[in-house]
Amino acid sequence: MGANSPTATRRPERIIGLDAVTTRDRLGNGILRATDVAAAYLAQVRAREDDVQAFVCLDEGHVMTQAERLDDMRKAGLPTGPLFGVPVALKDVIDTKGIPTENGTVIDAGRVPSADATVVRKLKAAGAVIMGKTVTTELAFLQPGKTRNPVNPAHTPGGSSQGSAAAVGAGMVPLAVGTQTGGSVIRPAAYCGVVGYKPSFGAISRSGILMQSPTLDTVGVFSTTVEGAAMLADALFGDDPSDPATTPSAPPALLATALSKVPVRPALAIVSTMPGGVPASEDMTLAMEELTGILGEDSFPLILPPMFDEAAEIRERINFAEMAKCYYSYERRGRDQLSAVTLDAIDQGKAILARDYLAALDWPKLLNTALDEIFMRCDAIICPATPTSAPEGLSSTGSAIYNGVWTLCGVPAVTLPVFEDSNGMPMGLQLVGRRGNDARLLRTARWLMNEIKSASGEMTDG
Amino acid sequence: MGANSPTATRRPERIIGLDAVTTRDRLGNGILRATDVAAAYLAQVRAREDDVQAFVCLDEGHVMTQAERLDDMRKAGLPTGPLFGVPVALKDVIDTKGIPTENGTVIDAGRVPSADATVVRKLKAAGAVIMGKTVTTELAFLQPGKTRNPVNPAHTPGGSSQGSAAAVGAGMVPLAVGTQTGGSVIRPAAYCGVVGYKPSFGAISRSGILMQSPTLDTVGVFSTTVEGAAMLADALFGDDPSDPATTPSAPPALLATALSKVPVRPALAIVSTMPGGVPASEDMTLAMEELTGILGEDSFPLILPPMFDEAAEIRERINFAEMAKCYYSYERRGRDQLSAVTLDAIDQGKAILARDYLAALDWPKLLNTALDEIFMRCDAIICPATPTSAPEGLSSTGSAIYNGVWTLCGVPAVTLPVFEDSNGMPMGLQLVGRRGNDARLLRTARWLMNEIKSASGEMTDG
Repeated sequence: MGANSPTATRRPERIIGLDAVTTRDRLGNGILRATDVAAAYLAQVRAREDDVQAFVCLDEGHVMTQAERLDDMRKAGLPTGPLFGVPVALKDVIDTKGIPTENGTVIDAGRVPSADATVVRKLKAAGAVIMGKTVTTELAFLQPGKTRNPVNPAHTPGGSSQGSAAAVGAGMVPLAVGTQTGGSVIRPAAYCGVVGYKPSFGAISRSGILMQSPTLDTVGVFSTTVEGAAMLADALFGDDPSDPATTPSAPPALLATALSKVPVRPALAIVSTMPGGVPASEDMTLAMEELTGILGEDSFPLILPPMFDEAAEIRERINFAEMAKCYYSYERRGRDQLSAVTLDAIDQGKAILARDYLAALDWPKLLNTALDEIFMRCDAIICPATPTSAPEGLSSTGSAIYNGVWTLCGVPAVTLPVFEDSNGMPMGLQLVGRRGNDARLLRTARWLMNEIKSASGEMTDG
Repeated sequence: MGANSPTATRRPERIIGLDAVTTRDRLGNGILRATDVAAAYLAQVRAREDDVQAFVCLDEGHVMTQAERLDDMRKAGLPTGPLFGVPVALKDVIDTKGIPTENGTVIDAGRVPSADATVVRKLKAAGAVIMGKTVTTELAFLQPGKTRNPVNPAHTPGGSSQGSAAAVGAGMVPLAVGTQTGGSVIRPAAYCGVVGYKPSFGAISRSGILMQSPTLDTVGVFSTTVEGAAMLADALFGDDPSDPATTPSAPPALLATALSKVPVRPALAIVSTMPGGVPASEDMTLAMEELTGILGEDSFPLILPPMFDEAAEIRERINFAEMAKCYYSYERRGRDQLSAVTLDAIDQGKAILARDYLAALDWPKLLNTALDEIFMRCDAIICPATPTSAPEGLSSTGSAIYNGVWTLCGVPAVTLPVFEDSNGMPMGLQLVGRRGNDARLLRTARWLMNEIKSASGEMTDG
């Protein structure tokens, strides 16, 4: 098979600079071979992984074998899928048949699933190359793994999908999959300077993925562009009888919609101060102010209604109560091997009363009723993705306080790497849409990305 | 309008003896007028209600007005619905627009809903005559209302849908709607000597009905025949966006299927001893033994797997925890006005931990996996509907221990009034089917009803 993969003929650096959709298109029309692309990204892994530590498991031989098989299929005239030859990394809470999936805990050391998660089956069916498993915090909660921020390794990459965000940020993979229960997709994406997209709750099956909190757990994606995130999500969306949160629905056409022109200039509601008592940093505040200046009259400042002040506590109550139930066997088998922060949440969760838990479950509906009113007046809410850029040090994954409320509401959220703090660390701008209106949110996000780009260009030029 | 309703020309006693499907057919083809039927049942109410006390609200004028309007519509050539002119009584936990709905508690005295429950809208659309509101136990739990057993007023009619069961049992209405969270349809139906049918969980919308335990609450129906129950349920089944337990599905065709011939002689699994530690009475045991003799080789004894022993505790845990949350405002507004038995359940529910509640929610799936195996070998499980006939006295509504497990599993159950104890009190035979296989269960029930009738006939003749 080696004879079919003359990887040296394509310059790796020309490949890893491409956005995922262009890569996919060039793979699809044969300008690039899957083996070229795989080899280029593997070279980048070799160059960056020592610093970034994004992967827990990456078998170069397995990656090249997948790519070679795809090239062979193409040569044999077989149809290619919508992600043909595109490498995708998977957070290590996502079950991969025959490949260890250890959920960020030694309690699962050597655990090898006997079946693929639904998302993995979908990726394989779409022709993606599974690049490897990325670092997750312990059980997708707060205890950091080994990953470092690809922009500055002295800073946290965020969590819990830290390896997926950092791998994309370091150019080691064009696309990655993660999960968010609080802020585990948007926060690391913002910290690592990439696009993170958390779809509407129930859009992507969680079957075969570590369950922390079934009311909140949401699969999300990482890319360097909105289009890349849309393309990957297109392949993952869909009803799955083994995940009751999913419902039958038409194909979302996320990429096609995201690429389409906005019919009218979108109106944005600007939330500068997010509820939860954690103010944005000065750098973030300045960035939001500057952005407000760019947006002009179609956008307006918004203060979220008072009920949103309780959302963080409500979300945590649901998360901890369900975690106490879902992680029961981890606690039983290996209490000594769990971090203090995880154990504390489980112990708090164990003490929550059923009626308080049930009362909390009513909140998403209430909050969405308020959001529905807001979305009558705007296309999206924009707010900081995180209060600050990635904090220095690796002992914490930073604050998810600006993300949890949107996870609780089940609304789609996307973060754009459009800001930078005074030390050159990336900061994310978060866009939030109405539940189920994912395609429209991504279209608005792409429009806004271009607006900001052209405004920056003007400012630089001027 | 009075000129259009010469009720005296049809003998009431010829109408109230009819089964509901025959009544519907005669109304549909014009042999009977809606006003004839309404007047006949109202006469029966006048004759029996003092003894039975099934209704909390019945406005004769309103009943006749509905019937007259239906007759006028028919004369005007307008289409008639599938329940055209058939009187239906509603348990007083079901919201009726403009008609008091007091949920069996003085806390709701004078409460008049501003909208009909979904089932009421469906009944009106089907052309049914809403006959009145029937007695429920306090908040559809255990504290009895005023209703007496129509067969012997010294005995309980069961609960919680006591008025609906007794009204059908006393011939005051051909059809009635109730709800079951433990055994609140099957038990009173068995005690009152009528057919009770609790469909699969999620088959009928609960929107606009008192919520006690959203995981368990199920709308059920009463009639004197399986066919009548099937006909009423046909009108009530269906997806409702305002009840998340319902799912889109094809019309169930319950009556058509129930009336069809069984393709092969059904196999029945006979459960003589139900889990829960309450043995059946001697009369019930003898009746089950006699039935076993009738059934012959296609049926076989079944002992439910040991996991079913815990089902009663698991069901109660879910029920009480959700009740503590759902009845919070009742407790807050009127703790002094609630019975000890209701308060005790709420207080127990308040102490249940979220993780224990969440662990209980896993049980229905486990139990149904076991049931799926059993239903590979039989068309239905049969078991006593209750351990005994209706106990003497009105201070308790009897035991629901033979019903709760089926409610927990969400499987369809129907009780047939085929047994009698040594004092002439009715006892029910319960048939249970696979979840979602309601039509087939009703067909098996109708077949069994006829088998038992012809066997009894042979025995009597012999």
